[in-house]
Amino acid sequence: MDATFDGDLVRAGRQAREQFYDARGYGRPDDGGVVLDPVEAAHLLYRGDLDAVVDGRSEDRDRLDFRAFLASTAVSEVAFFVYKDLRDRGFYLSPTREDWVDVATGDFVVYPRGQGPWDDAVAYRVRAVSERADVSAEMLETLATAGDSEDAGGEDAGSDATESSKTASDDEGTGVLAVVDEESELTYLEVTSPAITGSTHHDISAVTGDLLSDRVLVWEPSSNLHDRAFYGQRLDDNGGAVQLSLVEGAYLASQGTLSLASDDATDGVDDEQAVVDRGRAVEGERFDRRLRVYSALRTAGVVPKTAFKFGADFRTYADVESVDNLGHSELLVRVLSPTHAFAPRDLALDVRLAHGVRKRMVFALTGANEGIDWLSVSRLTP
Amino acid sequence: MDATFDGDLVRAGRQAREQFYDARGYGRPDDGGVVLDPVEAAHLLYRGDLDAVVDGRSEDRDRLDFRAFLASTAVSEVAFFVYKDLRDRGFYLSPTREDWVDVATGDFVVYPRGQGPWDDAVAYRVRAVSERADVSAEMLETLATAGDSEDAGGEDAGSDATESSKTASDDEGTGVLAVVDEESELTYLEVTSPAITGSTHHDISAVTGDLLSDRVLVWEPSSNLHDRAFYGQRLDDNGGAVQLSLVEGAYLASQGTLSLASDDATDGVDDEQAVVDRGRAVEGERFDRRLRVYSALRTAGVVPKTAFKFGADFRTYADVESVDNLGHSELLVRVLSPTHAFAPRDLALDVRLAHGVRKRMVFALTGANEGIDWLSVSRLTP
Repeated sequence: MDATFDGDLVRAGRQAREQFYDARGYGRPDDGGVVLDPVEAAHLLYRGDLDAVVDGRSEDRDRLDFRAFLASTAVSEVAFFVYKDLRDRGFYLSPTREDWVDVATGDFVVYPRGQGPWDDAVAYRVRAVSERADVSAEMLETLATAGDSEDAGGEDAGSDATESSKTASDDEGTGVLAVVDEESELTYLEVTSPAITGSTHHDISAVTGDLLSDRVLVWEPSSNLHDRAFYGQRLDDNGGAVQLSLVEGAYLASQGTLSLASDDATDGVDDEQAVVDRGRAVEGERFDRRLRVYSALRTAGVVPKTAFKFGADFRTYADVESVDNLGHSELLVRVLSPTHAFAPRDLALDVRLAHGVRKRMVFALTGANEGIDWLSVSRLTP
Repeated sequence: MDATFDGDLVRAGRQAREQFYDARGYGRPDDGGVVLDPVEAAHLLYRGDLDAVVDGRSEDRDRLDFRAFLASTAVSEVAFFVYKDLRDRGFYLSPTREDWVDVATGDFVVYPRGQGPWDDAVAYRVRAVSERADVSAEMLETLATAGDSEDAGGEDAGSDATESSKTASDDEGTGVLAVVDEESELTYLEVTSPAITGSTHHDISAVTGDLLSDRVLVWEPSSNLHDRAFYGQRLDDNGGAVQLSLVEGAYLASQGTLSLASDDATDGVDDEQAVVDRGRAVEGERFDRRLRVYSALRTAGVVPKTAFKFGADFRTYADVESVDNLGHSELLVRVLSPTHAFAPRDLALDVRLAHGVRKRMVFALTGANEGIDWLSVSRLTP
């Protein structure tokens, strides 16, 4: 069976079309024959379904076997390993080429098991990257927002605070990042836009606090402050003073709930500004970013608490009735700039840790105009 | 009971000495009375054992209660929270002051439960930091090397490859980093210098490989290469070609075990250099750092494999007889520059993840002169 590589596609005749496209979803029909993307041809060579591909670019019409094809620039190792792995898992899939598949994001569209390029449904849109590649937050957002939105919060659906309006129809499939590590192992990460909703709204009486160097101490807290609304932590297990983090303090001051005991240290600025200034002093512009995310979570009825022990910014509780009766926290939130470039290894670390503690990893990208884009990334076994 | 703060120490009389030092290990005896570090005085004020401290620096001899003392610059919040937490856990401890405790590292020495400053034994040397602080690798090394060395590898003790010779005597205690997070929760991390030893040494026949863009493909591997010495990964589960990572390839080339099939791509440099050059092309100077650590681990009889899924550089197996009969990997290794500054949150992330997958987190600091310092960091509950 003859197949010829023209530098862009591999072309073969009618018999190849029947055997490869009609029976197993490789390539696209073309003029009675079939055209194959180089990665598809590489897979057929690898399997021994094709012995060699004629290099139509060379005068001698060299015959390229799998080894020569893989060592050439015709096909990227990363694309080949992802393609092979998904085929090994029983999927038919197509490289996204402008003239083949009308999907803006991803390197492959993967069809539901048992379906192929002649059907309409798409299970996954897969972006294939090396572990060395930087993955921009923007690329993940594109992967996520062409897919479906999911509710990542509590059971109260339909909250006003839902942040993800950019959903797409079901048949575009789930956005997936496939990372090929240096030992050619695959890690699949599902990327979605979660809705952030909760039901925690408690009335709290006004309180007064001392601004210390990295916290606010409320010596006479109202009982709701900690025990129901879950602000701060008791200095002592058996009651008494409540210590607030600066981000909690700044939010409560912005709500008019916290005022500072002494104006001595605040140089005439208002109490909210005094706490924010202290936050910036201890953690720089990250403080503003984290405060914005903290405020958005509280507004959505979700309680953020520190996730220091998990190496993230916040863990969250969607439905807090009382601290005595606290459920499992649902999300781990990392706050990032929207221009952040992820090292895939750091993504793997966050996602693995979150999985291990039965939480969902969410990235909060604090964009311009006070907007926040939420991205949920989790392990996927296709 | 009168106690006076002179700006450095709090001084009180004989009765205070009996009650605080003799009975409960606060401060040091001094001229019949007792001198207390401010953090100790803060704790006594907090407990109500002292009502107030007279500020000896003020003309009016102001009386400072706990709230005023904590809001002043006399005592740091971080030190207070760590001191209080360790007292709550039933320990006596002393701030390290030049004239009190002759220990170079740490902010506190913690005595074994039931013992105190009048005894010789030390359980922990504790460095107290805020989660905002940068923690230098050098500081962790100092914490570790004043403490004990432990065997982190397999069961073969006494290997030549043991890297930690800078051990100290038992009675200096374990080095501990105590991190106070923004919600005033404590995380204790034990820092030690592990010995890296294993028993994996297999003879491998020479092999030939193709250098691809981010791996080396060995089309006709000797059976030992992967199946016993655990280099690379089979392209197919049922045998055949072995794909090596570039770091594996560079190490095998340095051992004379791997040569490259074609000299076309290597421009006259030798095979080892060709693989190293490719490694640098895909990951920069980090490649050299990782190769040094990889080589040191192999030399020590330990097999490093990628830890991408755990977000680290390598997971390691100390005693590999055969890949079919592989045990659990013991260590997660992250390769760092010796000038690295850890964010405590990143430390917490690594340590938490390693704990969750029952491995030990080890940092490999690649210093000058080919030396590597190994640091093991793990969670501790004092």
